[in-house]
Amino acid sequence: MSGFASPADFARALEALPAPDAAAIVAARARQGQLTKPAGSLGRLEDIAIFLAGWQARPIPMLKRLRTAVFAGNHGVTVHGVSAFPAAVTVEMVRNFERGGAAINALAGAAGMELKVVALELDRPTADFTVAPAMDETECLAAINAGAAAVDADLDLLAVGEMGIGNSTAAAALCARSFGGSASDWVGPGTGVDAAGILRKTAVVDRGLALHADAPATPFETLRRLGGREIAAIAGAVLRARQLGVPVVLDGFISCASVAPLAAAYPAITDHCIAGHVSAEPGHARLLDRLGLVPLLSLGMRLGEASGAAVAAGVIRAAVAAHAGMATFAEAGVSEGG
Amino acid sequence: MSGFASPADFARALEALPAPDAAAIVAARARQGQLTKPAGSLGRLEDIAIFLAGWQARPIPMLKRLRTAVFAGNHGVTVHGVSAFPAAVTVEMVRNFERGGAAINALAGAAGMELKVVALELDRPTADFTVAPAMDETECLAAINAGAAAVDADLDLLAVGEMGIGNSTAAAALCARSFGGSASDWVGPGTGVDAAGILRKTAVVDRGLALHADAPATPFETLRRLGGREIAAIAGAVLRARQLGVPVVLDGFISCASVAPLAAAYPAITDHCIAGHVSAEPGHARLLDRLGLVPLLSLGMRLGEASGAAVAAGVIRAAVAAHAGMATFAEAGVSEGG
Repeated sequence: MSGFASPADFARALEALPAPDAAAIVAARARQGQLTKPAGSLGRLEDIAIFLAGWQARPIPMLKRLRTAVFAGNHGVTVHGVSAFPAAVTVEMVRNFERGGAAINALAGAAGMELKVVALELDRPTADFTVAPAMDETECLAAINAGAAAVDADLDLLAVGEMGIGNSTAAAALCARSFGGSASDWVGPGTGVDAAGILRKTAVVDRGLALHADAPATPFETLRRLGGREIAAIAGAVLRARQLGVPVVLDGFISCASVAPLAAAYPAITDHCIAGHVSAEPGHARLLDRLGLVPLLSLGMRLGEASGAAVAAGVIRAAVAAHAGMATFAEAGVSEGG
Repeated sequence: MSGFASPADFARALEALPAPDAAAIVAARARQGQLTKPAGSLGRLEDIAIFLAGWQARPIPMLKRLRTAVFAGNHGVTVHGVSAFPAAVTVEMVRNFERGGAAINALAGAAGMELKVVALELDRPTADFTVAPAMDETECLAAINAGAAAVDADLDLLAVGEMGIGNSTAAAALCARSFGGSASDWVGPGTGVDAAGILRKTAVVDRGLALHADAPATPFETLRRLGGREIAAIAGAVLRARQLGVPVVLDGFISCASVAPLAAAYPAITDHCIAGHVSAEPGHARLLDRLGLVPLLSLGMRLGEASGAAVAAGVIRAAVAAHAGMATFAEAGVSEGG
């Protein structure tokens, strides 16, 4: 499957989001009712198995090939001192990913997931969105297509995450632009700025929102003006996964904010997505609520890199193991309740 | 290590609970601060790694041998119609465990845990605690020691769970006796009784509490009078694990209620325990609060069988994978924040 040919092609794809397989959902739900346990007693694990059945179009979903895709980009807004870390850390951490030393290497490994790292022109940060759009159309489309290219049709599950010094500032701007509220509703400490840093971030977001206030309110334009390459890539990956029937696990605030411009116009975009966790970043819980997603985990994580999504993938594996592996009442000769 | 020789020996063990290894905790905490991530950004995963380091007495804990122990027992109080399932289901489900068809088979397998099923005299239910103590001293001590015998010193983690039709009624009685409150504070639907069933359960608990109100308020006497064999076994397993330096993952309401009589007198008994999840049974959240435990997961599960503990073990695996596998800032050549 080739990339999105143009911004209009990307917009058309959002108009034609596929639905899950209704027959597989019915069959999976019926199976859950026959397994040797009180009906509903596996709680969210049952919901997850049925959800995966629908998107994989199989009554018994499988998890043979799981991928974690981590996209990395650099941000012009870092000139305003919005991060606790220098911008050089983005490329340093990509090297760490490639050498296997980062949290996501360990966590994807623990979940039995392959790790794909996509570094997006790290030597060419996006423009400072307080003075210009972060990307031109060609750059934004290329980033979206880099995300789409990271998804294969034979994946059973895709986790998405990011690395990009400064990107919690871009994420806050995307949230405010997509769902309203003031900059301070969406700005938080990110990787760990202090109170003064939060004030700087808030001012930067306010200036960005003001500069682009009259721009067309389309998903593409919002990503292009206020986002970043790794953010646009996540949006592209999530949309391509939908087209290919690959369920997605979203990570934290920035991953979810990458979908916000799409969800503001097309709320169904998150139907094939599981929120892996709710992070410690204050805006994330509010954002999940706007996206209509209930997080699977709440562990106070705030790292990014798809780290929370990878931990959640382990829980999703448990859900599928129970759904696929348990005996029915009839098979086991166990009496049913009443 | 042989069993507890007498009720007095069990009581002495509770007076001499070992502490975690302070040096291992300091070393593990220092390591977390050097790994390539913002300090604290792995949230609860960091706490878990440090917790395991302390109880395993190793700066880098390991998870090579993990066991799920499921204890099964039958309850005299089932004559009062306190369960949605017939008492025969206990033995049927044990057969299902042994054949590999239950949820815990799938979930322990997904978490890479060995499964040990201990059926405790299923053809000899405990006495109906509304008319007599559930067990005599010999029976209760034997059940405690069956639990202790399920723990080996070379385990790196132990998850405990149970199967026993009627045992959420016994669990409610243990909670009320241990922590106060009325029967209705602790009684819930269990595997799925209706409102009338809840009223029957509440009345049974009230009668049991009244009958044994003047008994000695020791952990052993409370387990013996209001508990059950699988419940006493969990108490014995948790205490023996503490003596052997094996960290424990508790499952749901009944597993936690098994520890309640110990915790009421010796709150430190839960120091080596992780609450795997908070279940849908209404009394569980209240009980976790009394035990001083914050649940790792909240997935609306209410099955028992150690099912929630086994799912939690997957998250604990992720915590150890990150702690053990990540590079330090110095190793990776990544700039630190400031």
